[in-house]
Amino acid sequence: MKYPNNIKKEFKKVITHSNRGMSLENIINDANQYYLDNDIALIYKKPTPIQVVKVQNKKIVDAFFKEPSTLDYSGLYKGKYIEFDAKETKLKNYFPLSNIHDHQINHIRNVIKQHGISFLIIAINNEYYLLNGLTIIDYIDSNDIKNMPYDFIKEKGFLLKYNYLRGLDYIKVIDNIMEEL
Amino acid sequence: MKYPNNIKKEFKKVITHSNRGMSLENIINDANQYYLDNDIALIYKKPTPIQVVKVQNKKIVDAFFKEPSTLDYSGLYKGKYIEFDAKETKLKNYFPLSNIHDHQINHIRNVIKQHGISFLIIAINNEYYLLNGLTIIDYIDSNDIKNMPYDFIKEKGFLLKYNYLRGLDYIKVIDNIMEEL
Repeated sequence: MKYPNNIKKEFKKVITHSNRGMSLENIINDANQYYLDNDIALIYKKPTPIQVVKVQNKKIVDAFFKEPSTLDYSGLYKGKYIEFDAKETKLKNYFPLSNIHDHQINHIRNVIKQHGISFLIIAINNEYYLLNGLTIIDYIDSNDIKNMPYDFIKEKGFLLKYNYLRGLDYIKVIDNIMEEL
Repeated sequence: MKYPNNIKKEFKKVITHSNRGMSLENIINDANQYYLDNDIALIYKKPTPIQVVKVQNKKIVDAFFKEPSTLDYSGLYKGKYIEFDAKETKLKNYFPLSNIHDHQINHIRNVIKQHGISFLIIAINNEYYLLNGLTIIDYIDSNDIKNMPYDFIKEKGFLLKYNYLRGLDYIKVIDNIMEEL
């Protein structure tokens, strides 16, 4: 099949979404842009925490990445506070909980305590699941093992579908979570 | 009067709060810490947006500060989404609206549209005012001048008091704003 050069490129860009390391972030950003453009929700990625050590003529010449103490995405939907993170694993049978920093787990607890909505979007086995913060905390508090089985995620999580126009469309799941609160 | 050396220092640290350039950020951070410690609210300062250009052996060696497109502080109070910024002016008669970037004004509009609570804390004339985002947007939309008079801020804003234990205690004002929504 022959495409004009630029269309081919576009096509290529789309189909590589599921293979690239950055894919999860990209398709979540696409969803957030769609929600913003359509007045559905206002959710954005926070800046990466960086400790600046030295600045010369407005240019940062010495700095380092800090460990995040909150989750990467925050915003609001129907007036409610939302905060979540996106995590990927190449493992097939479980998600290692070491992927979530202790500070982040503590932060999820605090968001729940303050009646906000917090969750993880987990990419595992070429599928995307939204797992409610409450489910994650319950699991951590009642299990000594540091891994969360794929079967548990599949059972307790909400399967998300990638959509060409909407990106990884997760917002409707939040309605389900709100009903559970 | 004679103090032991360390007490004197503490005392000094406190009274210089109102004079230092960083003071407003510090006393807001103190308030946020107090709210966190006492389960009143969960509000934190977002990381400063930085564009990383070059990283060598995990060290950032080339980067620059980006213009913020959102407000510096976000979080939740009673389940509601809060986002605000802290601004200072040394001018006595007005607050220059050029202190708020266009992207930030647009962001305040979006937060309001999504039923969140957005405001500015303005330091002017050695006083601190909380000015609701709706008031700011109304002012911008109905005035051509690029300054907001001190008298307007005094009339429409909520005067905030600095408290040694609680920092710049702004959370109660939000109850008033919620009632207006």
